[in-house]
Amino acid sequence: MPAPIQLLSELAEGQEAEFFALLSEKQEFTTRDGKPYFRVSFRDARREVGLPIWSDSPLANACRNEWAVGEFYRLRAKLEQTNYGPQLSIRRIRRVQDGDRKDGFDPRMCLRCSRFDPEQMFAELAAVAKERIDDEPLRQLVVDILDEHRDALLTLPAATRNHHAFVGGYLEHVLNVVRTCCHLADKYAELYPDMQPPLDKELVIAGAILHDIGKLREIAPTAAGAEYTASGVLVGHVLQGRDIVREAAAGRDICPEKLLRLEHVIISHQRLPEWGAPKPPMTPEALIVHYADDLDAKLNMMVATLAEDTGDGPVTTKRNALGQPIYRGVV
Amino acid sequence: MPAPIQLLSELAEGQEAEFFALLSEKQEFTTRDGKPYFRVSFRDARREVGLPIWSDSPLANACRNEWAVGEFYRLRAKLEQTNYGPQLSIRRIRRVQDGDRKDGFDPRMCLRCSRFDPEQMFAELAAVAKERIDDEPLRQLVVDILDEHRDALLTLPAATRNHHAFVGGYLEHVLNVVRTCCHLADKYAELYPDMQPPLDKELVIAGAILHDIGKLREIAPTAAGAEYTASGVLVGHVLQGRDIVREAAAGRDICPEKLLRLEHVIISHQRLPEWGAPKPPMTPEALIVHYADDLDAKLNMMVATLAEDTGDGPVTTKRNALGQPIYRGVV
Amino acid sequence: MPAPIQLLSELAEGQEAEFFALLSEKQEFTTRDGKPYFRVSFRDARREVGLPIWSDSPLANACRNEWAVGEFYRLRAKLEQTNYGPQLSIRRIRRVQDGDRKDGFDPRMCLRCSRFDPEQMFAELAAVAKERIDDEPLRQLVVDILDEHRDALLTLPAATRNHHAFVGGYLEHVLNVVRTCCHLADKYAELYPDMQPPLDKELVIAGAILHDIGKLREIAPTAAGAEYTASGVLVGHVLQGRDIVREAAAGRDICPEKLLRLEHVIISHQRLPEWGAPKPPMTPEALIVHYADDLDAKLNMMVATLAEDTGDGPVTTKRNALGQPIYRGVV
Amino acid sequence: MPAPIQLLSELAEGQEAEFFALLSEKQEFTTRDGKPYFRVSFRDARREVGLPIWSDSPLANACRNEWAVGEFYRLRAKLEQTNYGPQLSIRRIRRVQDGDRKDGFDPRMCLRCSRFDPEQMFAELAAVAKERIDDEPLRQLVVDILDEHRDALLTLPAATRNHHAFVGGYLEHVLNVVRTCCHLADKYAELYPDMQPPLDKELVIAGAILHDIGKLREIAPTAAGAEYTASGVLVGHVLQGRDIVREAAAGRDICPEKLLRLEHVIISHQRLPEWGAPKPPMTPEALIVHYADDLDAKLNMMVATLAEDTGDGPVTTKRNALGQPIYRGVV
Amino acid sequence: MPAPIQLLSELAEGQEAEFFALLSEKQEFTTRDGKPYFRVSFRDARREVGLPIWSDSPLANACRNEWAVGEFYRLRAKLEQTNYGPQLSIRRIRRVQDGDRKDGFDPRMCLRCSRFDPEQMFAELAAVAKERIDDEPLRQLVVDILDEHRDALLTLPAATRNHHAFVGGYLEHVLNVVRTCCHLADKYAELYPDMQPPLDKELVIAGAILHDIGKLREIAPTAAGAEYTASGVLVGHVLQGRDIVREAAAGRDICPEKLLRLEHVIISHQRLPEWGAPKPPMTPEALIVHYADDLDAKLNMMVATLAEDTGDGPVTTKRNALGQPIYRGVV
Amino acid sequence: MPAPIQLLSELAEGQEAEFFALLSEKQEFTTRDGKPYFRVSFRDARREVGLPIWSDSPLANACRNEWAVGEFYRLRAKLEQTNYGPQLSIRRIRRVQDGDRKDGFDPRMCLRCSRFDPEQMFAELAAVAKERIDDEPLRQLVVDILDEHRDALLTLPAATRNHHAFVGGYLEHVLNVVRTCCHLADKYAELYPDMQPPLDKELVIAGAILHDIGKLREIAPTAAGAEYTASGVLVGHVLQGRDIVREAAAGRDICPEKLLRLEHVIISHQRLPEWGAPKPPMTPEALIVHYADDLDAKLNMMVATLAEDTGDGPVTTKRNALGQPIYRGVV
Repeated sequence: MPAPIQLLSELAEGQEAEFFALLSEKQEFTTRDGKPYFRVSFRDARREVGLPIWSDSPLANACRNEWAVGEFYRLRAKLEQTNYGPQLSIRRIRRVQDGDRKDGFDPRMCLRCSRFDPEQMFAELAAVAKERIDDEPLRQLVVDILDEHRDALLTLPAATRNHHAFVGGYLEHVLNVVRTCCHLADKYAELYPDMQPPLDKELVIAGAILHDIGKLREIAPTAAGAEYTASGVLVGHVLQGRDIVREAAAGRDICPEKLLRLEHVIISHQRLPEWGAPKPPMTPEALIVHYADDLDAKLNMMVATLAEDTGDGPVTTKRNALGQPIYRGVV
Repeated sequence: MPAPIQLLSELAEGQEAEFFALLSEKQEFTTRDGKPYFRVSFRDARREVGLPIWSDSPLANACRNEWAVGEFYRLRAKLEQTNYGPQLSIRRIRRVQDGDRKDGFDPRMCLRCSRFDPEQMFAELAAVAKERIDDEPLRQLVVDILDEHRDALLTLPAATRNHHAFVGGYLEHVLNVVRTCCHLADKYAELYPDMQPPLDKELVIAGAILHDIGKLREIAPTAAGAEYTASGVLVGHVLQGRDIVREAAAGRDICPEKLLRLEHVIISHQRLPEWGAPKPPMTPEALIVHYADDLDAKLNMMVATLAEDTGDGPVTTKRNALGQPIYRGVV
Repeated sequence: MPAPIQLLSELAEGQEAEFFALLSEKQEFTTRDGKPYFRVSFRDARREVGLPIWSDSPLANACRNEWAVGEFYRLRAKLEQTNYGPQLSIRRIRRVQDGDRKDGFDPRMCLRCSRFDPEQMFAELAAVAKERIDDEPLRQLVVDILDEHRDALLTLPAATRNHHAFVGGYLEHVLNVVRTCCHLADKYAELYPDMQPPLDKELVIAGAILHDIGKLREIAPTAAGAEYTASGVLVGHVLQGRDIVREAAAGRDICPEKLLRLEHVIISHQRLPEWGAPKPPMTPEALIVHYADDLDAKLNMMVATLAEDTGDGPVTTKRNALGQPIYRGVV
Repeated sequence: MPAPIQLLSELAEGQEAEFFALLSEKQEFTTRDGKPYFRVSFRDARREVGLPIWSDSPLANACRNEWAVGEFYRLRAKLEQTNYGPQLSIRRIRRVQDGDRKDGFDPRMCLRCSRFDPEQMFAELAAVAKERIDDEPLRQLVVDILDEHRDALLTLPAATRNHHAFVGGYLEHVLNVVRTCCHLADKYAELYPDMQPPLDKELVIAGAILHDIGKLREIAPTAAGAEYTASGVLVGHVLQGRDIVREAAAGRDICPEKLLRLEHVIISHQRLPEWGAPKPPMTPEALIVHYADDLDAKLNMMVATLAEDTGDGPVTTKRNALGQPIYRGVV
Repeated sequence: MPAPIQLLSELAEGQEAEFFALLSEKQEFTTRDGKPYFRVSFRDARREVGLPIWSDSPLANACRNEWAVGEFYRLRAKLEQTNYGPQLSIRRIRRVQDGDRKDGFDPRMCLRCSRFDPEQMFAELAAVAKERIDDEPLRQLVVDILDEHRDALLTLPAATRNHHAFVGGYLEHVLNVVRTCCHLADKYAELYPDMQPPLDKELVIAGAILHDIGKLREIAPTAAGAEYTASGVLVGHVLQGRDIVREAAAGRDICPEKLLRLEHVIISHQRLPEWGAPKPPMTPEALIVHYADDLDAKLNMMVATLAEDTGDGPVTTKRNALGQPIYRGVV
Repeated sequence: MPAPIQLLSELAEGQEAEFFALLSEKQEFTTRDGKPYFRVSFRDARREVGLPIWSDSPLANACRNEWAVGEFYRLRAKLEQTNYGPQLSIRRIRRVQDGDRKDGFDPRMCLRCSRFDPEQMFAELAAVAKERIDDEPLRQLVVDILDEHRDALLTLPAATRNHHAFVGGYLEHVLNVVRTCCHLADKYAELYPDMQPPLDKELVIAGAILHDIGKLREIAPTAAGAEYTASGVLVGHVLQGRDIVREAAAGRDICPEKLLRLEHVIISHQRLPEWGAPKPPMTPEALIVHYADDLDAKLNMMVATLAEDTGDGPVTTKRNALGQPIYRGVV
């Protein structure tokens, strides 16, 4: 009976096992005495391990001519500790085949993922839309947009890098923003009962749910994460999110003023022109969504920087998504 | 036989005549000894004359209760030179009536206008589109957009102030940009025959024709000129122009890459985020349209400043649309 | 039996009554024919009414020589509607005397005030400190600072203008920030259970409570509102708030790292150098307090602008605390 | 009979031939096992090929001690395809000698060059000056400056890098700007017949011809391209161009106001202080020259980036002269 | 025997006397009841007094038709205190005549002046040049430039406004800068004896003396102060100062490297592009001159603001040349 | 008799000797054929020499396991010139022991130091304080702060890098600033005798002495130079310097207004928010200290860049503390 398939991220040091992995990196270098070699990396959802393939390795030919970044492999290999960190010593390797699914292979097992269940996050998002948006045409608009893009949203990252750049990251980020917005909308509607026009709580919530919906068109998931689409480069998710809403609203009986204000929440959510907003927030609803969004993104960058930075001393370097040192504390 | 109707802008000093005019200003002030009075202005296409209506004037009551900015009047008045510049001494005044049309009244005679015939400008624009755009679906798209909005375009100003802020100003500005772009597209296509992808001359021209088309939704003509619409404030003509193109393109057999590049020309035509562009020009076509547009707008501001500034000394003040002194020269 | 004392803000048009008011403005002007006159304004907590005192008025002498801005008066006057808005027609006027207290005079009745009861806001703030801060020395520090400055905090505005510039505004603003921070601290601590160091929820809350405490030294309440102190001008509340914390912490057994992080929350709460922060937020706790604070301040500016702007058209001007147009909506 | 001399840029893969080339690069490296080696590159006008000279090569000694960057060599070599791209395998090499001219050697054959004939470009420039500038002293000034610097202008690049950085690049760029300016001057003079002072078309053209003339002093051609002079670093071409004009104008009977306006065109042609202009364009003539110049420079950067960028995906990186991604298109 | 001529600035309140004065202001206004009047001001070096000329004044006609700003008058008038500050009550007034010189008239007695004697300041400047510049050609260049422009420099202000904007202000400012530079040059030459190239002390001093010399061409003295010339507007003193140096250096045997470094000191003395420097200081000499110059200018602005600001409270407004509040102190 | 101990910085090429040195660098690399090696550097006060420790060296084991950056060693080694610059060939090496002091070891002999004697600099600083500050409490405050921190100040660098980053650098920088301020305070007090309030010369001097005193808490000396402390990162020396002054002033009988102005000098000495000043200089005293400080720092950066830059051509690169090219001159 064959040894059961293991997870790369669960291998112990020195352990040899069979597992599935994504080839996430393959770059050619040359030694100073002129010999070419490749540096390759394999990963699953929670561990990435690199190794060199020297030109005299029995794998050299396959590596050069066949292995491709973004494809999945079934390996038998040993995890070894070396002076240059952990490396794989490969015994056998082949492309994943259809039959491997029955041994447990699933492409998503090889990508960085949200710690939360996408299905549950999606369900909560839909539930908030249904419970908190009273205006029927607006509620239906939001719910329909979610439903139409359900499959894509379940795996979409929130960005190609910077923040929440992993499978399910979109839902994780948006859900955080929506929850904060529910709290803030309730709070400020109560605080300013005399505002004219009154704070439109359901607009805050609809805006929070849809503020980043243009990511569906701006970035495209790849085996290695996500990359910008042509239209994402030339137009950008801020405008594309408004497009999705306008297209979905066409032919519906939605109040034009409400729709316009919703569009404004989306295009102003990055607040300043140099941060990517064609218009600054000019309504209380847009202002609230901006702050909830920006805090969640920046805090995620800070948390990720603290988790990944390997320096010592009380602060990290400023080479991170925030572009400033983060205080790590006295340890 | 009654004296023929004259033009306010053609009255000589001291002349009394009958003419049509727009009430362009009506503001209440109070003298320091407590008496209220109104300052009003009347204008036609080329002259604007103000006068005070004192509280003891026989016109005081009508002025306070009936006269309204943006409405047209038939006056019999004398143009008098005073210490405070030319003023009108009104003999008779009443609202314009239907019958006045037969005496030559036309609302447009009271608005600042382009020196060029809108019909001819429109015709030239349409002709350029038909002659210079070979790609059939793109040509048809441009022509159809022009045709659909023909009536509005014939009178649209290019802005509420700053540059080409007068009837027909939109066409005047766009035609200037288009002519420059025809020249530049030919020139640079010839200069860089090996560009990959090749310079798309018809995209430059289509982009020039449509770059400001969103003004149709951003501003609304009023009797006194133009003002921003709600959607113009919250969304802006850069995005709205792209909307018009996308809406018109829906269902047509237009090459998606070409459409995308056209959208990009529109949204990037103000070049920098702080100048209003969500994305900078990333294609040669977009770059060319930006420069042709920006030069025409800035040059118009400079020419208008030189024409209107009444100071002496070699430079104007910097209180003008360019925000800098303009050199008037040694006179 | 004399007519009961009324409130200026409750007078109906045309009503004559006796009331207490603060002289909030007194400026000398001159009519164009050379006669000097004064413009004065009286106000209570919710209404301010101006009027001219002409040089031939029986009040002219007292106005010039005796009346002083910031002092309180007992008036018998009639509220009249005029072409220049509502004005007072004064029958009798004298300075407030000790005996007026028994008729209901209280200086606070003449100042703009928070709609919320300062005592209750203070109590809620203290309660949050006691319930949510587990670390004993930190909790005691926060509670003691609040207690020591209780009297001043009960009336302090949050600023001399811009946002929450009224009696009790400090407490109203801080309480909003604290409530938002309680929500966000709980949420993000739960979301990132593996952060190293863990999110310090009580530091978020202590920072929220104390972030603006330096206003106690930066501004000084006056009869007409508040003004900057000399040290407020030369040093500023960001540094002075940290001073108050450090002075209160001296001699206590508080963890130095915790104190340092608390100081950092205070000095970084305006985020960017050009917004007034000597250091940017470098800890998650500081980041959260910044966003909660900035949203509350900006939203208050927006709400106040919408309430006060008297223009028409869909947007306000940009002459407001935010320096940008606010969307009023289509009415 | 010896094989005829060939061009490096015309060698086929695998072909061995004799050719002239410039040594454009020579840098010492060391292999990780401690052996020093050199990386050298040879080039002619349209191809540059590198190769390593290992320490045990028979050429090692000559390479270390004799070969010098910026000198010309006669080689017999074979062009070979390797894993690291094309390389030369050198059979024979020696410095170019006087006698090589009769075999066709010309130093310019080894430098990147404009695709256009410098003599023709110069002739066109001079012709425009003669035909389009009516004012005799101004025309003579421009013509004399061109004539005086004819030799230098024939080879000058427009910059050391960034745009038109090749032999003849100065003339190519200036000619583009001049042609655009002819078009724009005609167009806007016709459009604004009432401008006061009238648009000075010949000033636009003189300014276009001379706007970059200071490059003659700012940069100095070298064998490998061009480098900044000391005065170029400390003063810069914007000021130095004005110097050349003023020096040439001294003693001539040129209208002082015209000369001053010409100087202004030169010093303002980079428009903003942070872009290198001591004064912004304050005349219509200066404004036109700026736009024509800036468009030509930026478009050249974009075209060059598209030609040189070797990445994949729809956009280039932002590491190019424009500092932003350029859209390459979907291929 | 007639009463002796007095000085306007020495009149006591209530005193009537005969004096010379400059008409520094004449503006027409109108009262709200329609009567035109003029506001005029007369001044001598240390006092400026305004008054209205009503339309029914016996002076009204002469004022409207004859009086001209920038001309000098002989008045007999009484200085009276009014509600609007001190005013003149004019008994007699006529233009100054040649014969008035024998009664003590001198145009300079009517302009704001430096507190220091221009002749002495000039002499000190020349002495520093002679004593501290050892290099003969450089010394002679500096001395000759000073000598050639001696007359103009004796009265030149340092600017039209902002700092040292009074007769002799140029010399006062430059002398301050030169003195500071003498100190700093000695100090830093001693501190860094090993600098390569060594600190060129005489270059620091020559640069300090000449850094603003272009003001001679940028501004032109007027009766009322100074105004920008056409070339000052289009080119500016930074470039024009370098022109003066280059013109004076032509044909001299001055070391080209030294001259180049001197030019660089001049063009970089405002340090940043947005502060007016085409190049930043790239030599130690240029850096020193910048700091000495900037401190002297900014400190003068601060001192002038403190002297002129008439508000109360601990700080001035920010409407001053520095654009920020200045601390006045607790009084 | 053993050879006497020498100084590393005095070894001649080819000389073998015994000396003490600090291990200032130890980094692991790997050759392309997979062998790990270390690059290490040793230094004394005036020379730093690097060398590789190959994996087959007899020192390899000790290097990997025992040698530590920041510790001191006694070496016997030969200084050899190689293709890669001077290297050490180590014969013997061991950690410094207590007994080495009698052979002349002193840790300071291994650190970069000011060229001036710290004791003398400190003495001059104290003398200036005593002689130039007349106000007794202020003088005592300054003197006591200096005395309390005497030991730390004797070795403190002025920064971790950028300027005066060496032992004694703090004193060298501060003394320069103080001397300049003595000169400027005298000069401007004499120049502006009428300033209100008068220029406070002793405040200028006290501010100069204490402006950077917060460096005591912001940076901590290490064996290899200095590094930021946690509080330095989170709070910064500008605020910490004011803390030191306030703590020292507590309980003294110092004039509160004078103390406040002194605090302001410290917190504003970096002038602009983006340069690190929470408040801009609002007093003449603060303005003077800023300029004296900034010039000394920037000039030191320029001098150091000229000394260290090893390129050729007339300018350095812009990779230096000033972020701009420095002119080296024509050599």
